[in-house]
Formats: sequence, structure tokens, C-alpha cells
Amino acid sequence: MAKEVTSREENYSQWYNNLVLKADLAEQSAVRGCMVIKPYGYAIWEKMQNQLDKMFKETGHVNAYFPLFIPKSFLSREAEHVEGFAKECAVVTHHRLMADPDGSGLVVDPSAKLEEELVVRPTSETIIWNTYKNWIQSWRDLPILCNQWANVVRWEMRTRLFLRTAEFLWQEGHTAHATEQEAIDETQMIVELYAQFAREYMAMPVVVGRKSESERFAGAVDTLCIEALMQDGKALQAGTSHFLGQNFAKAFDVQFANKEGGLDYVWATSWGVSTRLMGALIMTHSDNHGLILPPKLAPYHVVMVPIFKTEEEHTQLLERMYELKKELEAAGLSVKVDDRDNLRPGFKFAEWELKGVPARIVIGPRDLAAGVVELARRDNLNKESVPQEGLAERLLALMDDIQENIYAKALKFREENTFKVDSWDEFKEKIEEGGFLLCHWDGTAETEAKIKDETKATVRCIPLDSFVCKEEGKCIYSGKPSHERVLFARAY
Amino acid sequence: MAKEVTSREENYSQWYNNLVLKADLAEQSAVRGCMVIKPYGYAIWEKMQNQLDKMFKETGHVNAYFPLFIPKSFLSREAEHVEGFAKECAVVTHHRLMADPDGSGLVVDPSAKLEEELVVRPTSETIIWNTYKNWIQSWRDLPILCNQWANVVRWEMRTRLFLRTAEFLWQEGHTAHATEQEAIDETQMIVELYAQFAREYMAMPVVVGRKSESERFAGAVDTLCIEALMQDGKALQAGTSHFLGQNFAKAFDVQFANKEGGLDYVWATSWGVSTRLMGALIMTHSDNHGLILPPKLAPYHVVMVPIFKTEEEHTQLLERMYELKKELEAAGLSVKVDDRDNLRPGFKFAEWELKGVPARIVIGPRDLAAGVVELARRDNLNKESVPQEGLAERLLALMDDIQENIYAKALKFREENTFKVDSWDEFKEKIEEGGFLLCHWDGTAETEAKIKDETKATVRCIPLDSFVCKEEGKCIYSGKPSHERVLFARAY
Repeated sequence: MAKEVTSREENYSQWYNNLVLKADLAEQSAVRGCMVIKPYGYAIWEKMQNQLDKMFKETGHVNAYFPLFIPKSFLSREAEHVEGFAKECAVVTHHRLMADPDGSGLVVDPSAKLEEELVVRPTSETIIWNTYKNWIQSWRDLPILCNQWANVVRWEMRTRLFLRTAEFLWQEGHTAHATEQEAIDETQMIVELYAQFAREYMAMPVVVGRKSESERFAGAVDTLCIEALMQDGKALQAGTSHFLGQNFAKAFDVQFANKEGGLDYVWATSWGVSTRLMGALIMTHSDNHGLILPPKLAPYHVVMVPIFKTEEEHTQLLERMYELKKELEAAGLSVKVDDRDNLRPGFKFAEWELKGVPARIVIGPRDLAAGVVELARRDNLNKESVPQEGLAERLLALMDDIQENIYAKALKFREENTFKVDSWDEFKEKIEEGGFLLCHWDGTAETEAKIKDETKATVRCIPLDSFVCKEEGKCIYSGKPSHERVLFARAY
Repeated sequence: MAKEVTSREENYSQWYNNLVLKADLAEQSAVRGCMVIKPYGYAIWEKMQNQLDKMFKETGHVNAYFPLFIPKSFLSREAEHVEGFAKECAVVTHHRLMADPDGSGLVVDPSAKLEEELVVRPTSETIIWNTYKNWIQSWRDLPILCNQWANVVRWEMRTRLFLRTAEFLWQEGHTAHATEQEAIDETQMIVELYAQFAREYMAMPVVVGRKSESERFAGAVDTLCIEALMQDGKALQAGTSHFLGQNFAKAFDVQFANKEGGLDYVWATSWGVSTRLMGALIMTHSDNHGLILPPKLAPYHVVMVPIFKTEEEHTQLLERMYELKKELEAAGLSVKVDDRDNLRPGFKFAEWELKGVPARIVIGPRDLAAGVVELARRDNLNKESVPQEGLAERLLALMDDIQENIYAKALKFREENTFKVDSWDEFKEKIEEGGFLLCHWDGTAETEAKIKDETKATVRCIPLDSFVCKEEGKCIYSGKPSHERVLFARAY
């Protein structure tokens, strides 16, 4: 089974698609660009959701739900927002189908044309700020710290499972504040929350930074982001947090009576991560055998496979396995016993490797008699024989070890693929090999566009964390003065 | 504040709308028929979701996600399904907007017309069975027990918050089985699960029964349901579980190799509950003071209100309240301290009564000195002074008591409003007063339609539980022979 996965070296893009399909994470649906998230893939997404939701609530946020549809006119209210989001979107124009008068099938009922077309939300700033208008009168109504878990639609021309789909699932936070500083602090706090989630749960190193003007969210004053480096040397934007200034408050006329008795426009932020994180997770850790899942997000921590010749042996082994399963589950581990009687162990091994289960336990009749199991870890494929006694503690420690190990491995990869580049020739050469390039840039959109045209590389971010590199230098492209290095890469 | 709620006696429908709005549960949005679920309402829905999700998983189900859009042609595949669901729906016809060439604003780009229109899912049987076709080859692939939490759209002409909205949130389970019996068992198991949820968590008595042919889900062989009685004497269908036979498997050509080596069509079920449950919850328990929430679904179990004259008193009281909050939270209770300094206690009392918080704790300076609190319960408005010591245990017991008490109250109401009726004249009279009417019916759609025309009452279900009443009798309308009583009522 594992043999069917194209190797990364052969064709990275096909390797990725193969993994998503063969590990039962997702598949294309009958609707162009829309995916089906299969149960195994959804179980991982649910674990992400649960953890993020917990972190949002711990930082004072509450969930709510706003409409799927946005009146067309709302999109044009914020001048920049309309440019970014009114283009490729799903437009509802009618509210009824009828039997085709000329035969079988259905046609749109022309008499059921909507007075104003509705757009399926590509993001919800407009409908939410139109709602907040009624929620906010005084500074006592602030802050509002809402999040929603929802589906959104952007009519992308080229789609790839999880990475870019017409419909995707995400969370979008939309907060309203009385002061500029409070909104800026929120934007910053959330990007740090995302970074913490990426590092601690996805075991994915990220750079926290600020977007350049041309990569900013349409309608934002400032966009902060986390950027990760994939195994093929391309960057992936994994989450964004926007300081929206008073742009949406002005577009939807949301003012409040401040403490001093005056009227002010409300300050806003919005922020989101999506099922795109699934793509990032896959491409950060997996190998030619399949997925490698961080224990903190794995649907199963442990899979157990019996090795037997007779039916009697199978029964005995399964009996012991279900006992062990109970013990392990009591310790907080999630366990799958592969009791299928029609498949060879080798097939099962390959399948669970493909699915990235962190640990595999194999028991044969001799192991059973000796009170041991064979324990294999997915991250480095090492195997050892260990006693059945104390298995839960051993596995708990192993989960921590795998979680740390795959983070360390990904971090090492990023370090080995991050380069300071100081000349245009070197840039053009290096960018072909992939990786993060830390370079001086003159800060102009013009230069950025030219670099993109010539190399497909963009400013991923102006780093804010340990990647900050404030020093005098010259723009690699224009030679104009620059005061800090920024992060360039080709990106998903 | 509470005075602003219209009384139930005065205008039941307005009382309901008032509650939904004033308790901050939901509101109308700018999009016709689509609601905004506000944080307090969404917190209740989240509690419902969490419990149901747990129950689904305990019974072997997994979550997945299928596309929002359904190709128009899919809807016509199942002959009856199309009748039920292809009528009032949101139709996506284009995938792009462009700047209006004649001025400002946006218009639909005529060049971006879809080849085939897409319908925003009103329910997902068609897209899911089209997907299952690729998942199912052999009996070893069965059963498939998927659920999805999603939004759906039905273009209802008359909408009411939670009860009937154009967009609503729900879960829809879609299972595939190798045998008819297994699918029938699943249908039955789920309707019992819904009934258990309604009784134990919502504290809402329900009748489990089977729908008559005309009330059946479009495309189902059999629809089971739970029916609840609202305080105004109208019935509310709170959940349905459908045995779909092989209808969708045939429509989408989903066959499997059975154990005997032959080819069979797959057997199906589907089942769902929605944000409509929020409406049911409100109308089962609430009174003229506002919501009454069952402790198992209440966002806060306890609210604490200090009574103070000086700022110093306020500080002292809050200090003690936050200590108590910690103790109560450690015991698993959810606690809100109302520390607002600009509102009178009476205003706060009314607000938290309106929001249905099960218990209120009031502390004044003298209580503080005496080590007591005033404890008020929302369900019967009783108040007593109790010691601060042992408060957590007392409140935990109180929560159980309130949960049982409001169930008992609702059950008593239903018993007092369920009548055996044996003549048409009595039926016409009784139906005006509301309630469940247990009557003989000749089992024909014709009679059912006539009864509906004349009285607006429908067969809510043919009871399957303690309401079963198998006995010989004569149809109240046609006088033809009948072998059991069925449940009639006017319904939401």
C-alpha cells in the first residue's frame, strides 16, 4: 500500500495529493473545488478546533454565529475590502427551482429572482460590522470578543485539497475595542496564540511577522501572520491576525459614546486559521511512508496489530489487546486494535504508517507468552521489544518524545533552509533551491512586484520574533538603503 | 427590564420573540430570514452540540464534512426527494461580481455564469450518497456511520427566530448498512438517543413515534420523530430519524458485494436535530420573567450579585465572591459575578432572571459578616438564606433538583393537556384549546388532509412508546375502523 505513494523526491506535489487521498483525509467532491473531509481527516481537524477553541475561551473570547449570506451591497462599503473579496465568489441570484417545462429535470424559476443578490461569505467583516452597529452604543458595550467557526467560499481557479479549496472551514475572530491600543494588543496577542498552537500542538515551527502592504488583508491597517516552511522549501501562511483600524466601523457607521462623553468610531481586529492548517501539518512532518502526526493531534496514539496463524491465536491475542487497550485508555491514550482477519500484518503496518499513527504495538503468540510487545514509533521507524507491564507510562513518555522530536526535526530543517542573502544574483540562484531568504528590501511595493515577477518569490513577512534582523543594508534588488532584513520565499 | 417582556397570556408569539431578543439569544440579520445567533444563545447551542456529539460518538459514529453546494441535477435523482427539497432553495448561478460599468457598486459578471447551477444544501443526502458510491465496494466497507455539523438553507417564506429560519445550524447523520434490519435498528436507536437527550438534558418530555405518510421526509420509507408539547398547546417536532430503504442507493447506484458474493444496494438512514431545539427549549420552560434554563445546558449555573452602598463595600463583597466562585468552579459549576458598578441590584436581578440562570446568589455587607448568602432559584423564584460553608454541595444538589423539577413541571403540563377524543365535534372544540389529542384515524392521507384543512391539526405521530394505544375504534373523521390511536395537534 505504502508503495503506491509517489515519493517526495520524484514529485512533491503528487506525493502530497497521494497522501491526502490514501491516508483518507479528504477527497475532491462532485462540486468543482469543494472537498469532502473524510472522517480520519476530520478527526484531526476536530482536535485542532478543540484546542484552539479552548485557547480562545481562555483569552476571553466567546463564540457566535453570523449569516452565511452577505448582501452584495455590503461588500462595496469598505473601499479596499471590495477589491479583495468581491471578485471570485459564489453569487446567489434566485431562491427557487422548478420542473423544466420542456422535459425532465429542474431549472431556475425566473420569477424567483432576488431583489439584491447574495454572496456566500468569503469572510464576514461586513455582515458582522453591520450587526455590531446595533450592539454598540457606549464604551460599556466594549470590548466585543467574538469568534465563529464557519464555512466560507472563495471561487479559486486552481484548487488543491486543504491548501486552496473553493469552500473551506475556518474560525474567524472579530473584535471591537474602545481604543486603538487595545485593538493592536489583541492583534498581537492572537498572532502569538496562533504561533503557540502551531509550535506546541502541530509541532510546526513558525515565524511571526508583519505582512508587507501588498500582502495585507484587504481592508486592514496591519496584518500579522505566522509563516511556516514546508519540506519542498516553499513557505505557507498558516494564520493571520489583522488590525483593521476604524475602517469597518467607518464603513458601517459604528460609533460609541466614550468615557469622556464624546463619540468615537470603534477599533477592530479580525483573525483566522482554516483547514489549510491540515495541509501545513501534512507537509511539515510526513515522509515517503505516509503521514507523521504529532501525538497531540493524532486521532489514535497507538494501533495494535496481532500476528497469528490460527483463529485461536487471533482470539487470544485480541483478548489481551483489549485488556491493554483499557489500561492505555485509562491513562488518556487513544487506541485502535486492528482486528481485521482478512489482511496480512504487513499490509496493516503499511496502512497505519500511511495514516501516521505515532506508535504501533505488535503482539505475536511468543510475545504474549513472554509478556512483551514490539513497539514501533512512526517518526523514526525504530522498533524495540518492551514489557507489557508499565506500557501506559512508557507510551505516554513516548508521545512526549515524538511530539518534541518531530518539532526539533522540523526546526532543524528550517534552520538549514534559512539563508541570509545579500545580492540579486545569489537571490535568484538560492530561490530556485527553496527556503527562507532573509534579505534587505527597500520597502516599496514596486520592488516587491518586480521581484515577484522575476522569481515568483514574495515578502512572506517582516519578522517580529527571533528572526528580527535590524541592521543597515542595501535592497537586494534596487540597492536602496534598508534598515532591516525581511523574509522572502516562494509560497503556497 | 423584565417588564418589557410581553406576557404569555397577552400574546404568546410576541412573548417568544421578546424572550429571544431580550435574553440575547438571537436576532434577525440584514439578510431575509437569516438569524444572528448571539454569544449567550450560541453558548447554549454549544452545550447541546457537545452532549449530542458525545452521544453520537459513544454509539460508534464519526464526524465528516461534505460540500455546502449540491449540483442542481443531483436533486432530481431521487423522485420524491426532489419534490420536497428542490423548491425553495438558494441557487448559486454565478461565480463573480464586477464593478458596475454604469457607476459605483457591484453587479454580477454575466461571463461568470456557472455551467450547472449549484443549490446551497437544504439537506445532504444527495451529495453524500454520490460520495458514498466511491467509499463502498464490499460488505467490509459497511456500516458507514457519519455525522456532520453544518449549516443548511431552506428558503422559508415565513421565518421565526430558531423555529423556522432560512439558514439554520444542525447535525445530519447519514449511515449506510448491509442489511435492511441494521438500518431499521439504527433509525430506532437514534430516535431513542434524541428522546434521551431531550428528556435528560433539555428536561423536555417527548413522544417517540412514527410519521404518517404525508408527514414523512421526502425520500424516506419511514420517518421516526420526537414530538414535544409547547406551553401554548402546539406541538413541536424536535428531531427526526429516517429509514431511507434503498432509495438513495438506487438513485446514486451504490451497490456492494455482499458476503455471499452477490451485489446488493446499500440500506440507508439519515437523522437530524437543529437550532430549532433552541426554540423548543425556550417554549418548554420559560415564564413571564424570562428564560428558565435546565442546569445541564445553562451557560452559567450561578450568578452572584453584590448589594452595596459604598465602594469599599463593593470591593469587599467582590473579593469574597471571587473566592466563592473559585470554590464553586472547582466543583464543576459555572459562575458569573456581576461586578458592574453602574446598575442597581433590581435591574441585575431582572436581567439574570430574563436570561434564565438557574441560581442567583446575593450578598450584602450583613450577609458577609454573618457568613451567609441569599440563594434564589429561577425555576420557582424561592429564596432562602444559606450558609456560605458547604455552598458548592448545596448548589450541586440544587442543580439536580431544578433539572428534575422543570422536567416534572413540563411533564405535568403535557399530561394535563393530552386528551383522548372520540368524536369529530369534540375534536374541533378541543383543538382550539390546544394540546395533544389521541384519536382514532382511518390511516388515509385523504382524511388527514381534510382534518388539516378544517382544523390546521396534523397527525404528529403514531406513538411508539408509552403513548401507544392499540385498540379498536372508529376514525373521528370518516368513522372507518381504526386499530390504534394516533397523536393529533396543531404544530410549529
